[in-house]
Amino acid sequence: MAPKYKLIYFNGRGRAEAIRWLLAYMEEDYEDVRIESGDWLKMKHTTPFEQLPLLEEDGKPTCQSLAIVRYLAKKAGLAGDNDWENLQLDIVSDALVDLRSPVTTFMRETNEDLKRTKKETYIKETIPFYMKKLDTLVKENGGYLANKKLSWVDFLFVSSVVESLNLICGVPDITADYPNLHALTQKILDIPQIKQWVAKRPSTAF
Amino acid sequence: MAPKYKLIYFNGRGRAEAIRWLLAYMEEDYEDVRIESGDWLKMKHTTPFEQLPLLEEDGKPTCQSLAIVRYLAKKAGLAGDNDWENLQLDIVSDALVDLRSPVTTFMRETNEDLKRTKKETYIKETIPFYMKKLDTLVKENGGYLANKKLSWVDFLFVSSVVESLNLICGVPDITADYPNLHALTQKILDIPQIKQWVAKRPSTAF
Repeated sequence: MAPKYKLIYFNGRGRAEAIRWLLAYMEEDYEDVRIESGDWLKMKHTTPFEQLPLLEEDGKPTCQSLAIVRYLAKKAGLAGDNDWENLQLDIVSDALVDLRSPVTTFMRETNEDLKRTKKETYIKETIPFYMKKLDTLVKENGGYLANKKLSWVDFLFVSSVVESLNLICGVPDITADYPNLHALTQKILDIPQIKQWVAKRPSTAF
Repeated sequence: MAPKYKLIYFNGRGRAEAIRWLLAYMEEDYEDVRIESGDWLKMKHTTPFEQLPLLEEDGKPTCQSLAIVRYLAKKAGLAGDNDWENLQLDIVSDALVDLRSPVTTFMRETNEDLKRTKKETYIKETIPFYMKKLDTLVKENGGYLANKKLSWVDFLFVSSVVESLNLICGVPDITADYPNLHALTQKILDIPQIKQWVAKRPSTAF
């Protein structure tokens, strides 16, 4: 019997959206629980690392968005075929973590001047550095980020990185100047299950 | 034929040490290349993400320390036995990333007052929060971080987290107040190949 899934997150895309895209791709029916900040404060201390998302599989709780993505990817047929291929996926995934991690730094900065400077450096230096590297990877890998075929890191890139960088930079398409990343993004958005999910998902602030 | 490995890093433990411990555990002979900052500036732009470590396997270059650890762990028999077990390892590994990632924030802070405040918050709040959670995990998992058996996340914890937190906090043993983590650390340090490596490795500043 197919497992039953329950996803718990805030009413936003954020760190849950990659999981939602994988579940959509797998055509899994799942409970998409979106909690309010007040409820979060009440339940926070009951979660493993005081973080969301959580995913329950047949009632068994799991956590950490990236760990969950890796787990679902295997079921979805989006992992590598051998250890070397999985290494290539992990290299890209680690680079995506490196690309995203400075965001927390300026998001949490309380001094407004510093926040602005840090955000500017991120937008002018960090993003272009990684986007250029990733664009080259896609060019070398026949239109995908690794192994010349579709994988979970392509999903992770479009569902998490592209969407959050568009928001941070206030642009409609952060891949506009990166033709290979732009084509990859379009390819993922054109997958019927993803197109359907993006069309019907709740409109949220983040 | 066994693959030939060449590890390239600075003359320090840092992000390469977990790789060195796995190679030691696997009893692999490998070239442990330690480069000077001057040479790094010259070679930086030739590396995939302008980062070290790099690991070459039979001349094929790979990068990203965590990706390399995951890859070697499979060869070392330190991965999980099934997808669910690997999910548990990835959850712990993601938590270790969360525990370590604020370090960059205060390390790169140029304002000395802010640096001190951020470091203090990290030492007084972040570290105890995660150490307590991890200590409970080890208690619940028969002396290991996950799946009630030895895995690559135990190696990652002792070789990277414990060693770097000792350095940051200026203490001989960051696990002193966490009996389960302390016992786990001792257990890893008592593995003959690890004991031998730690006794013979170069003494370095970080």
